[in-house]
Amino acid sequence: MNMKRRIVLTGDRPTGPLHLGHYVGSLKKRVELQETCETYIMLADAQAITDNYDDINKVRTNIHEVVCDYLAVGIDPKKSHIFVQSCVHELPELAMFYMNLVTIQHLGHNPTVKAECKMRGFNEGVPAGFYLYPIFQVADITAFKADLVPVGLDQAPMLELTRDIVRKFNSIYKKEVLVSPEAIYPNLKGALPGIDGQKMSKSLGNAISLSDEPDVVLKKVKKIQSDPGRKSATDPGDPEKALAFSYLDIFDPEFLFVEELKERYRRGAVSDKEVKDRLIDVLEAFLNPIRNRRKEFHSDPEGVLAIIKEGTRIAKQKAATTLLEVRSAMGINYGNF
Amino acid sequence: MNMKRRIVLTGDRPTGPLHLGHYVGSLKKRVELQETCETYIMLADAQAITDNYDDINKVRTNIHEVVCDYLAVGIDPKKSHIFVQSCVHELPELAMFYMNLVTIQHLGHNPTVKAECKMRGFNEGVPAGFYLYPIFQVADITAFKADLVPVGLDQAPMLELTRDIVRKFNSIYKKEVLVSPEAIYPNLKGALPGIDGQKMSKSLGNAISLSDEPDVVLKKVKKIQSDPGRKSATDPGDPEKALAFSYLDIFDPEFLFVEELKERYRRGAVSDKEVKDRLIDVLEAFLNPIRNRRKEFHSDPEGVLAIIKEGTRIAKQKAATTLLEVRSAMGINYGNF
Repeated sequence: MNMKRRIVLTGDRPTGPLHLGHYVGSLKKRVELQETCETYIMLADAQAITDNYDDINKVRTNIHEVVCDYLAVGIDPKKSHIFVQSCVHELPELAMFYMNLVTIQHLGHNPTVKAECKMRGFNEGVPAGFYLYPIFQVADITAFKADLVPVGLDQAPMLELTRDIVRKFNSIYKKEVLVSPEAIYPNLKGALPGIDGQKMSKSLGNAISLSDEPDVVLKKVKKIQSDPGRKSATDPGDPEKALAFSYLDIFDPEFLFVEELKERYRRGAVSDKEVKDRLIDVLEAFLNPIRNRRKEFHSDPEGVLAIIKEGTRIAKQKAATTLLEVRSAMGINYGNF
Repeated sequence: MNMKRRIVLTGDRPTGPLHLGHYVGSLKKRVELQETCETYIMLADAQAITDNYDDINKVRTNIHEVVCDYLAVGIDPKKSHIFVQSCVHELPELAMFYMNLVTIQHLGHNPTVKAECKMRGFNEGVPAGFYLYPIFQVADITAFKADLVPVGLDQAPMLELTRDIVRKFNSIYKKEVLVSPEAIYPNLKGALPGIDGQKMSKSLGNAISLSDEPDVVLKKVKKIQSDPGRKSATDPGDPEKALAFSYLDIFDPEFLFVEELKERYRRGAVSDKEVKDRLIDVLEAFLNPIRNRRKEFHSDPEGVLAIIKEGTRIAKQKAATTLLEVRSAMGINYGNF
């Protein structure tokens, strides 16, 4: 049977270390996908700059860090092309052409951008680059002809916009150049909250990073919310209200043991300390090999650079091919001047 | 004395033949400027596409035509670099970075864009590309470090935006990378109306093109508005109300003869036909050598292509240097990956 290999585009804004939330929501899936799909993993520096244009140092230094996170969790550069967004010069050009196919009014209705603008509190107005980033995302996705895009639910409007532009482009220029992508949404049941119960996020300071040292993990786990109605270990508690159990549900390989612990928690037969000690052991077992691999890669900046270089070279090649097809379809492929 | 040569950026949207209005308002000045300035003349195809995205053929075919117009009026490719905007891939990338420095609200206040949107009657909303074209213009100007930009008065807000972005960029990234441009506005006293008295414009169908054949010029001159209050050649007339005199003022080398003709017009001693016959002779004397040179270039498409190619090569080189400086100042010049 002749099946076309699917193409995956995914990535991260390099603005801080990746954390357990990233692992559960995305990295784990990527490690699986790379086995069967042509995978492009983008370090979205240009996008990160749209709301960090006055602190670019943060973006630049995190490129190396994020790649070390990738490699540590098992992203294999032989299978996944890890590349730097701003080095693929074809992307803004594609975005420029797509800008003709969407109205500024339509962009203003994007609920995710609206919410993000509110969150960032742009008092003096929204930077045009931030307002338009959905179009640049369409360029990212279509440049690689990705047909499978793992995203958060909040990114659903971006995927919708991508499909709109793909449809409009192919129809106006009468050629099936661009590919309409399908989203893969994370399993929300398995979403990992931050240590304060909110969504785990680097900007909220409630994340356990993949690179956290044991003493940092210890401190953070101690802060994890327990059932606030419970005063002592002999009080009955609700494991649904003790966040440590959300972590154990995901990371503890011994499912039955966790169920037993929950049962003891309900009838006041286990202390929160005991539950958290278990969690610390479980997280250590998970994080220790990642941390060690990470250190290996981190101590070899030349090797990491070579990986980024090669991934970016391949990404450029692919995007250049698409851009050429796009310009040919539009009728502005003038040859080589 | 050591004076830095000034750098000029100018250009046209290749959407139709250039006309006498272009000559008077801009081309004549360019032919002068190229003698002393480093001149870049841009065929703004990407900009033209923002409101012609569904009729790109018009844009593409007019590139060759407009270059023939340029060469015919005396633009010298040894002195002026004639290039195709969309082939300078650095421009959208620069625009992307500048988008972070302007708010979408600020762009919405641009009176020229407002007026143009109204004129074009975008019923279903303004294409994002059109809304943002001022930022792309900033990229065009700054990519070549142009410090002298001949524009129409309606483009004053674009120059203001350019200066804003230049100031903001150089201050945020703490380096004097970008150059603040100065506008050259056309002499409004010498502005040439179309044959119906409105602004001469290819889209209004009231223009005499540089490439018009003698019979076409004849027909158009016959349509030129005369003093509507005048019934016969012996009625006194107002030369201010007879458009033919606006043309004679500009194109007739015999200033005193024109003054005498006006005087006769005032006292009813010359027919409109006689005035127009004079104008036809004068325009023929002006257009004939342009038309002949134009035909020579037009019959040598390979030669014209070579000129565009070379101009674009040089423009690319210059823009690439600027982009590198821009990225270095921003701190995202990662080397060669």
